[in-house]
Amino acid sequence: MEVITRVAEMQARARQWRQEGKQVGFVPTMGYFHQGHLSLIRRAVQENDLAVVSVYVNPTQFGPQEDFHRYPRDLERDIRLAEEEGVHVLFAPSDAEMYPQGYQTYVEVTELTQGLCGARRPGHFRGVATVVAKLFHIVQPTRAYFGEKDYQQLRVVERMVRDLNLGVEIVPMPIVRESDGLAMSSRNVYLSPEERRAATVLYRAWKAAQEWVAQGERDAPRLREKVVRFIEAEPLARVDYVEIVDPLTLEPLERLEGEARLMLAAFVGSTRLIDNGPLTAT
Amino acid sequence: MEVITRVAEMQARARQWRQEGKQVGFVPTMGYFHQGHLSLIRRAVQENDLAVVSVYVNPTQFGPQEDFHRYPRDLERDIRLAEEEGVHVLFAPSDAEMYPQGYQTYVEVTELTQGLCGARRPGHFRGVATVVAKLFHIVQPTRAYFGEKDYQQLRVVERMVRDLNLGVEIVPMPIVRESDGLAMSSRNVYLSPEERRAATVLYRAWKAAQEWVAQGERDAPRLREKVVRFIEAEPLARVDYVEIVDPLTLEPLERLEGEARLMLAAFVGSTRLIDNGPLTAT
Repeated sequence: MEVITRVAEMQARARQWRQEGKQVGFVPTMGYFHQGHLSLIRRAVQENDLAVVSVYVNPTQFGPQEDFHRYPRDLERDIRLAEEEGVHVLFAPSDAEMYPQGYQTYVEVTELTQGLCGARRPGHFRGVATVVAKLFHIVQPTRAYFGEKDYQQLRVVERMVRDLNLGVEIVPMPIVRESDGLAMSSRNVYLSPEERRAATVLYRAWKAAQEWVAQGERDAPRLREKVVRFIEAEPLARVDYVEIVDPLTLEPLERLEGEARLMLAAFVGSTRLIDNGPLTAT
Repeated sequence: MEVITRVAEMQARARQWRQEGKQVGFVPTMGYFHQGHLSLIRRAVQENDLAVVSVYVNPTQFGPQEDFHRYPRDLERDIRLAEEEGVHVLFAPSDAEMYPQGYQTYVEVTELTQGLCGARRPGHFRGVATVVAKLFHIVQPTRAYFGEKDYQQLRVVERMVRDLNLGVEIVPMPIVRESDGLAMSSRNVYLSPEERRAATVLYRAWKAAQEWVAQGERDAPRLREKVVRFIEAEPLARVDYVEIVDPLTLEPLERLEGEARLMLAAFVGSTRLIDNGPLTAT
């Protein structure tokens, strides 16, 4: 495996691959790999001629009060894990390579970013869309892999790719969970042992919601209230949002009919966690 | 020459060319070709294996009170002229192809667009950057050709290409003028015969400014005032802006030292015209 840190070098390599007709799989990450990342990486290695993984903690998607500086990093471990999975190139650029002096261009997806994490984290999805567009231009992948854990991000990236004609196939991958249901996240390392136990409340709230739907609940605002109360019953948890939305438009629903998505964000202690899952009204 | 109207078809063709290692020259236009367009097209044909010209009057770069609906169009003539120049593909998509239902993604260059036409035409450069990014993704050119007539647009596109790592070489081309100095523009057809004569005031103002600089004028605000008075002395003309700016950052200058750019916009009758030219203080 090769580690590339220069944009120009990565882009030249990618251009060569495209000329050779190679299928390139790409997994953009912020590093500090867990089993969620590794599931994406394995799939990318498996179904393409070449796999590229980027490790870049993107400053433009963090708000000024957020955890950019303390976000967990361990590039040596990530390199070792990527190599073990058969990745061909790990791309780890610096901030100066990605956002040189005078940088001033941003990509905005205007509607899908209005609610949920977009409402709580102003500028977050602008940063995400911008860095993903840049990485796609640099790596020129055939396919790119995104976890459903960041469900709104997945929809935003899909929309950007379609709208800007980026010509990249977006492959969504299911959430990978710990044995007790907690969705894997690099931010889980922030949790104290008590908080770690309490953090399963998001998963349990989704399971409870599925059960309420199975029992016939079809009123989305009422179901939403039940989920809020369920989460708030956990003393260490504080709801950031609970929404029941259309899985494609992310618009809040009034009635549960067919497929819906339960979208959850909560603070456990001072750590903000997100989770989501399908709700199917049959 | 082939005329392509479908995005998917144009993109598949472009992908094939890139795999074959072809150099592709691209001239994005709003059609209604004049000699300015043709100078770009000739250069693109000359220095690439293949030349693509797009003809698309992009709605997102027009304000609600602007001339989108009456902008001059003559696709048959454009097709004939492009064919005569040896263009390989003329790409003429519909609005539904470029901005399908649910479209919501935009590219913004934040600083270069603050002044000049960006200040007078809110959203204009967002529309320009977005459509150029889309066209670059669809056509995947090696080089793209832009006229210096739209000088701020040229700087915005250059900045976007660098910031988003688009990997396209931007080739600036000099303004082509009528024999009396009027910069060629598709909008010149809006002018009545009297207005057409008055419209040379922009060119004459630039020539006068060059002369004042040659005579030793180095104070930019004072030179600016002289140019404003020169243009306003033409009864049919009304200044929209006169600015003396740094040619790269487009920031207004206080002193003329080295290279500067005189940026002009004026209404002649109800038609808004722009022009610009270098001012060199030696």
